[in-house]
Amino acid sequence: MLKLAIDMDEVMADTWAKFIQRFKEREGFEITSEMLTGKELSQAVPAELKPRVHEWINEKGFFRDLPVMKDAQRVVKELNQKYEVFVASAASEFRNSYEDKYDWLEEFFPFIDWRHIVFCGDKSIIGADIMIDDRIRNFSQFKGRPILYSSPHNHFIKDYERVNTWEEVAGLLL
Amino acid sequence: MLKLAIDMDEVMADTWAKFIQRFKEREGFEITSEMLTGKELSQAVPAELKPRVHEWINEKGFFRDLPVMKDAQRVVKELNQKYEVFVASAASEFRNSYEDKYDWLEEFFPFIDWRHIVFCGDKSIIGADIMIDDRIRNFSQFKGRPILYSSPHNHFIKDYERVNTWEEVAGLLL
Repeated sequence: MLKLAIDMDEVMADTWAKFIQRFKEREGFEITSEMLTGKELSQAVPAELKPRVHEWINEKGFFRDLPVMKDAQRVVKELNQKYEVFVASAASEFRNSYEDKYDWLEEFFPFIDWRHIVFCGDKSIIGADIMIDDRIRNFSQFKGRPILYSSPHNHFIKDYERVNTWEEVAGLLL
Repeated sequence: MLKLAIDMDEVMADTWAKFIQRFKEREGFEITSEMLTGKELSQAVPAELKPRVHEWINEKGFFRDLPVMKDAQRVVKELNQKYEVFVASAASEFRNSYEDKYDWLEEFFPFIDWRHIVFCGDKSIIGADIMIDDRIRNFSQFKGRPILYSSPHNHFIKDYERVNTWEEVAGLLL
């Protein structure tokens, strides 16, 4: 069975949606999709609001209630029948995210057992056949088939097989 | 630079020493090294004490104060100059161990940055050149060079390159 590594943030979970909502609610600052195109979140907000990104992302609970990406539950469940699915998240960057991410997976993707949860940093250690990720830095040493999941920040990146939705992932891999 | 994946429990950290101490202190039960040879910890204790293993290992804090294996700090630090060292622990089996293991590493192995911390389950996802581990199940799909770190439970296992101490790891890899 082929090993399929799937990223969490901006692929299974809509992390940026939570940031956008937070900036609106707590700072009264509206982030439009145009402001994010080809940019990092911290580049889309005024300089004085930048520290909020770092602050919130290190907060306990931040990753616990992220919205699930449309169709992700259904498609990942189906992929899990055909591939050995590993969820591979760079959670080690945020020590306080481990339990939130684990609990989130248990709630929304209960068919992914602990054996298939990988919380890492540098993804060059991942030895999978296929990797779905929104960050091309994670593909730099990857020997398998990389599939770029579209996110505003990677909008202008070329030269990768790209999917825009989980429906498209299903069309490609199922 | 070659990628070297190093296991935590029973390799960097003396997990069983903590169990042995606990059984003695809390249950008045002494575990000798003879009782552990070629066995799992739960096989070395009377049936009525078996549930303690599961209970304690899932406790918050259990992994936070494990003794560091002799010479591990010095040798891993030296290895980290010559190899790309990843600490790869099957922490996902114990959700409550994530933060403890992260904090333990930060305290005793501060030179291992978050990019090189991998908390996984099934280690078949690890794509490294060398793996030091006490569990041969972690070598079953491993394409690199496996090095078995001696632990009482693996005493009778043959057919693997074996090290008994960190001093021996140094002799082999440095």
